[in-house]
Amino acid sequence: MTRKILMHVGPETIDYEVLLAGVRGDVGFTSKEFTDVMRYSLSFLRKLTNAPSYQAFIIPGGGTSAMESISSLIKKGENILVVSNGVFGDRWEKIFSRYPVNLKTLRAKAGYYIKPEEVLDEVKKSKINVVTLTHVETSTGVREPIQSVIKEIRDYVDLVVVDGVSSIGAEEVRAEDWKADVYLTASQKAIGAPPGAGLLVVSNKALERLSSESISSFYLDLRNWLPVMKAFDEGKSAYFSTLPVHLIFMLAKAFELMDKEGIENRIGRHEKISSAIRAGIEGMGLDIVAKNPEAYSNTVTGVMLNKVNPSDVLTRMVSEGIELAPGVHPDLAGKYFRIGHMGWTNENDVISTISALERVLKVLGEPIRFGEGVKAVQETLSS
Amino acid sequence: MTRKILMHVGPETIDYEVLLAGVRGDVGFTSKEFTDVMRYSLSFLRKLTNAPSYQAFIIPGGGTSAMESISSLIKKGENILVVSNGVFGDRWEKIFSRYPVNLKTLRAKAGYYIKPEEVLDEVKKSKINVVTLTHVETSTGVREPIQSVIKEIRDYVDLVVVDGVSSIGAEEVRAEDWKADVYLTASQKAIGAPPGAGLLVVSNKALERLSSESISSFYLDLRNWLPVMKAFDEGKSAYFSTLPVHLIFMLAKAFELMDKEGIENRIGRHEKISSAIRAGIEGMGLDIVAKNPEAYSNTVTGVMLNKVNPSDVLTRMVSEGIELAPGVHPDLAGKYFRIGHMGWTNENDVISTISALERVLKVLGEPIRFGEGVKAVQETLSS
Amino acid sequence: MTRKILMHVGPETIDYEVLLAGVRGDVGFTSKEFTDVMRYSLSFLRKLTNAPSYQAFIIPGGGTSAMESISSLIKKGENILVVSNGVFGDRWEKIFSRYPVNLKTLRAKAGYYIKPEEVLDEVKKSKINVVTLTHVETSTGVREPIQSVIKEIRDYVDLVVVDGVSSIGAEEVRAEDWKADVYLTASQKAIGAPPGAGLLVVSNKALERLSSESISSFYLDLRNWLPVMKAFDEGKSAYFSTLPVHLIFMLAKAFELMDKEGIENRIGRHEKISSAIRAGIEGMGLDIVAKNPEAYSNTVTGVMLNKVNPSDVLTRMVSEGIELAPGVHPDLAGKYFRIGHMGWTNENDVISTISALERVLKVLGEPIRFGEGVKAVQETLSS
Amino acid sequence: MTRKILMHVGPETIDYEVLLAGVRGDVGFTSKEFTDVMRYSLSFLRKLTNAPSYQAFIIPGGGTSAMESISSLIKKGENILVVSNGVFGDRWEKIFSRYPVNLKTLRAKAGYYIKPEEVLDEVKKSKINVVTLTHVETSTGVREPIQSVIKEIRDYVDLVVVDGVSSIGAEEVRAEDWKADVYLTASQKAIGAPPGAGLLVVSNKALERLSSESISSFYLDLRNWLPVMKAFDEGKSAYFSTLPVHLIFMLAKAFELMDKEGIENRIGRHEKISSAIRAGIEGMGLDIVAKNPEAYSNTVTGVMLNKVNPSDVLTRMVSEGIELAPGVHPDLAGKYFRIGHMGWTNENDVISTISALERVLKVLGEPIRFGEGVKAVQETLSS
Repeated sequence: MTRKILMHVGPETIDYEVLLAGVRGDVGFTSKEFTDVMRYSLSFLRKLTNAPSYQAFIIPGGGTSAMESISSLIKKGENILVVSNGVFGDRWEKIFSRYPVNLKTLRAKAGYYIKPEEVLDEVKKSKINVVTLTHVETSTGVREPIQSVIKEIRDYVDLVVVDGVSSIGAEEVRAEDWKADVYLTASQKAIGAPPGAGLLVVSNKALERLSSESISSFYLDLRNWLPVMKAFDEGKSAYFSTLPVHLIFMLAKAFELMDKEGIENRIGRHEKISSAIRAGIEGMGLDIVAKNPEAYSNTVTGVMLNKVNPSDVLTRMVSEGIELAPGVHPDLAGKYFRIGHMGWTNENDVISTISALERVLKVLGEPIRFGEGVKAVQETLSS
Repeated sequence: MTRKILMHVGPETIDYEVLLAGVRGDVGFTSKEFTDVMRYSLSFLRKLTNAPSYQAFIIPGGGTSAMESISSLIKKGENILVVSNGVFGDRWEKIFSRYPVNLKTLRAKAGYYIKPEEVLDEVKKSKINVVTLTHVETSTGVREPIQSVIKEIRDYVDLVVVDGVSSIGAEEVRAEDWKADVYLTASQKAIGAPPGAGLLVVSNKALERLSSESISSFYLDLRNWLPVMKAFDEGKSAYFSTLPVHLIFMLAKAFELMDKEGIENRIGRHEKISSAIRAGIEGMGLDIVAKNPEAYSNTVTGVMLNKVNPSDVLTRMVSEGIELAPGVHPDLAGKYFRIGHMGWTNENDVISTISALERVLKVLGEPIRFGEGVKAVQETLSS
Repeated sequence: MTRKILMHVGPETIDYEVLLAGVRGDVGFTSKEFTDVMRYSLSFLRKLTNAPSYQAFIIPGGGTSAMESISSLIKKGENILVVSNGVFGDRWEKIFSRYPVNLKTLRAKAGYYIKPEEVLDEVKKSKINVVTLTHVETSTGVREPIQSVIKEIRDYVDLVVVDGVSSIGAEEVRAEDWKADVYLTASQKAIGAPPGAGLLVVSNKALERLSSESISSFYLDLRNWLPVMKAFDEGKSAYFSTLPVHLIFMLAKAFELMDKEGIENRIGRHEKISSAIRAGIEGMGLDIVAKNPEAYSNTVTGVMLNKVNPSDVLTRMVSEGIELAPGVHPDLAGKYFRIGHMGWTNENDVISTISALERVLKVLGEPIRFGEGVKAVQETLSS
Repeated sequence: MTRKILMHVGPETIDYEVLLAGVRGDVGFTSKEFTDVMRYSLSFLRKLTNAPSYQAFIIPGGGTSAMESISSLIKKGENILVVSNGVFGDRWEKIFSRYPVNLKTLRAKAGYYIKPEEVLDEVKKSKINVVTLTHVETSTGVREPIQSVIKEIRDYVDLVVVDGVSSIGAEEVRAEDWKADVYLTASQKAIGAPPGAGLLVVSNKALERLSSESISSFYLDLRNWLPVMKAFDEGKSAYFSTLPVHLIFMLAKAFELMDKEGIENRIGRHEKISSAIRAGIEGMGLDIVAKNPEAYSNTVTGVMLNKVNPSDVLTRMVSEGIELAPGVHPDLAGKYFRIGHMGWTNENDVISTISALERVLKVLGEPIRFGEGVKAVQETLSS
């Protein structure tokens, strides 16, 4: 059976309207059709992140390429503070360890996040040029209070960069009001398109740091992409290196459907869905990885198991027509799995997931309160 | 009318079977389905490049990301010789100018290529660690005699890297026999899938150069991708950064159709098609950018104009349902355009292109022998 | 949101693999590709109905055109007995009332079926040439015990014709063993393809009745279609009137997926799904239209409401992403709606449907035991 | 290679936008989405046939089902005159020979048409209730001067029915001004959608003849479909027998693209294309089946062969990526084939077809003036 629900962390279930938008045999990278969807997509990306005056970028790759592209904004010897709540926070550290910069990392325990005041303490200690934050840590589902952190530290640092990979499109994001310099994501996350593009909005202040002196390599040097994006913004074709044309038609369709749903409504839907997922998990008596309700995210829920092997759960869930995501945080290896609930996830997906999960866990012998998860979902959805 | 023939340099006309293969709502990046197509695609890439013992890589991006990824094989201070026949040869220079290496470039005039003996002379002068070659220079359609060049220089250099972007899938490529260490391309070129992936085969000797000491940055460090590719080769799922899942389903379908056609047959088709295109161009009395029949490629033909503006030609050709590629070589700016004839291009596309081109050039006032282009195509196709 | 679950009576939710199989620009009605899928589809239709020696037909239209086409087997003045359990049983009567035949109808009350012995009594009374039966009455979800009825009456009548529209593909059907002369369905029912074709298997004995003397009109005269079907059976192209080519590619894909699932497994899935639906309905305290558990079908469940308007339920369910079918039996007008559960329906669809239905009915004020429906589904699926 | 050009008589090459419009998993036959496309399609069908006050019908099947459905307008014993220019004119005779009516046929020789004055002579002889005409005879490509014929006979007959199967969408059709009572076609012809629906516009005067006394059978009785079409016209859902839902989404997309092109422009395109096809055929020295330039149609060209077997030509053309249609007129059996040029056919298809045809005929040994066909096409397209 090919009818599968993807409660994964991206790609997750994708609306077929999005997928079909890429089935085009008539679109060269210099075509008017492509120029039109690029212009629209860049414009909508600003709207989605509430960054009207920022420059939007759509570049090949995904979250990691978008993250690394900010090396274009950094000079040799600068000081970078990585605020890490898990695997993808640590990714910033791994990226910058390849560059001639001074690197400091604040690392939270699995399931926790670094508090705003801890970041403040750190940036006060010594001059920090760039702080990297992770809005929602995909490896654990923990959400950082971005607005508060930036408020605390804004005066002390040059550049605030936010990984919004599991947030943009599903959580409130106000890049400009909150004074983040860079907010980035990937096409396959809460945007709900296939993977293949990294998306960024960058403040003009940050763009001033672009120079031939930056530490960046070539392909991900935003200096190369800037004139291309500016051209598309003006409705003109431009080229640096071939963009994923067909994917961007899909991305534009995802943006169009988002706009039709309404960004507020979309965030509201993710909130409701995620509440119902957590109600289901807790109803059946399992623990959530995120330790603090304030840290619950709209997009990813880590689920702790007491007895059975998460990979057995995932395998059986696939037989039930539902694909979940493995746990990847090394400190919780073998103890948890993740449910992604982003993009086009709806209430039917939630009840299906919790229903199947109860049945699978029962068969595998995990001690749960069978039926109570489903009951809790039903009550949450009904409220 | 959306029925357009793309005689572009990638994406060009794509078979709809390929495009439809990406319309899947059921494929997470850890799914068995994805693991299967990765395994198949890596395996077929080896077959296509005649590199059975090499490691194949499929990474996000395209030609440029594939090119830059070889920074993973290079150490600080090494000597690199760029053999450039045009814009994409020069791209190697631009890439490496971001890195702490010693760079030397041999640059051909537009329409010409650097002869094997010229490369030999150069590598004899001083120690060269890495030579980069361009099999077919996409900006001019000029083909380098790769086998001869490598034969001359093989003993003098550590690493021979070939940009096969406009050749793999349409020209004879025997990476292993010819002793190229790296042969690379992009999904949207002669492979005939949409853009979004860089493809490489790398010799084991070259892989030994992978180390934490390489000059490479993070995302394009092949060290990060190697275990992932090895896992897929063994039929196991693995993750470093999300691959363009849906695109790779399309890529695998393109490979499957290639295999059905037969690689030899496919190269033969490209030869015949390109001969017919050139016969048409010369029949109507126009010059081809490549100055030497030995340098004619199977995939790209640059066409010189004597009077009218190439961009006017391209615009009118779109109205005729055919999209060509603009000229991009700065030395020939405003004097030529390109016809891409790769991937799924067939004889019907050729006669259509030359027929429409004659009509468009006639209307625009370019002096041509109207009717003689079409006649020459018809005779070539019939022979 | 375009992600909708169709719990309708056809078209219902269709697997996208099926839909995509029709996206072909290269298939004329004389193409080898079309000939191949026709041959395969005719062959699989025999397998699906357990009618290896029968002639299979795929004709344009749907259930009604398939029903009317049996006029080709009937001569002026013959006696026809219609055994009707509802709207689609009555359709036989409406069809034959346009023809010069003698018509008698046994009509069951809504929710009931005509018992085998009642049919026997009737056929004993006077010579009956043709009896029409309805395996599953789509208007009420009532299943007739086809095998028993035929066993009783087989010796008394010339031709036994079974409307298997809501059964073939989801209920056990053994056309040949049970000695039905004609078993028919439509592409969009339990087959799970889009609407557009009527499908029949016809015994050789019945085919002997084909003649220029039959009462049939032109388009639906099986005499015209017989040589076409025989040609396709032999792998040859043939033409009477253009078949729905693209639909038949989809039909063939549906058959291929069926074969992969296994016909037995598929019937088993429908049994499990339908039990769970009924458990859910009864769990929340509502009545099922079919009055007798023996009459429960695998494909359609009629649901009685006590208070609220069925059309309000359907409208709200659409907002919940689930499309149900209106009630159409005139005797129950305004009192019930239908849930279709056929084709590609799975367990996730069932829990989603009952969950949403509870929530919708609660909001609308229908007295139900909220939560008990979902609980019952979960228990049924788990058992 | 799946990239094939269908120069067939329907389905011919279909724009992929049309095909993809049917890939929808969310459209039950009672859905608002379906109601919307039905309303639009009925409305556009009136526009396309210039029949603003007529009732439009979209029924399952195709040309033949649409033809037979006019039995709903006819009573027992009425006099019908069939004006036949070939196989599809004769089809009217075959249809009505199944009914209790008096039938007279005027039959033209292959390649010719019945002149208006011949029809007039006939209708003057005795009372004729219904005359059937064929606008373009698909078996030969001969066009009847519909407007003139109707002008001559209008006062003498009750009902004038025109088979516009190979004309509507490609030839001028003014149903209301010309006073045709019925104009009909099928979805897969010049409309350019897949096969599966018959389309009709019917005058109100003709609709008054609908009654329980008509000779029609059940499925094709327009009395059953009339309330359904009226409901859709008012934006309401209705049901008689399931319509080909997905096909109608494709049909609506074809109509939408037509509207975008402009009906006048579309007819103009067909004129130009057909002139070029004929120029090519005559250029290479072959004869056209239609004997009189006045009878040349915009949609179908029959091509006479002098030596080689048409079926060999068709087989080899498929290898060249072009599918033509076999000849079907019994009087010319084995002597001709047909080129369909309707729907989305463009200038590139024409030059491709004539180019390939010359090459194929040369190889097979048919005496032609090689190169002159292509030359003539090029000149025609350029003029």
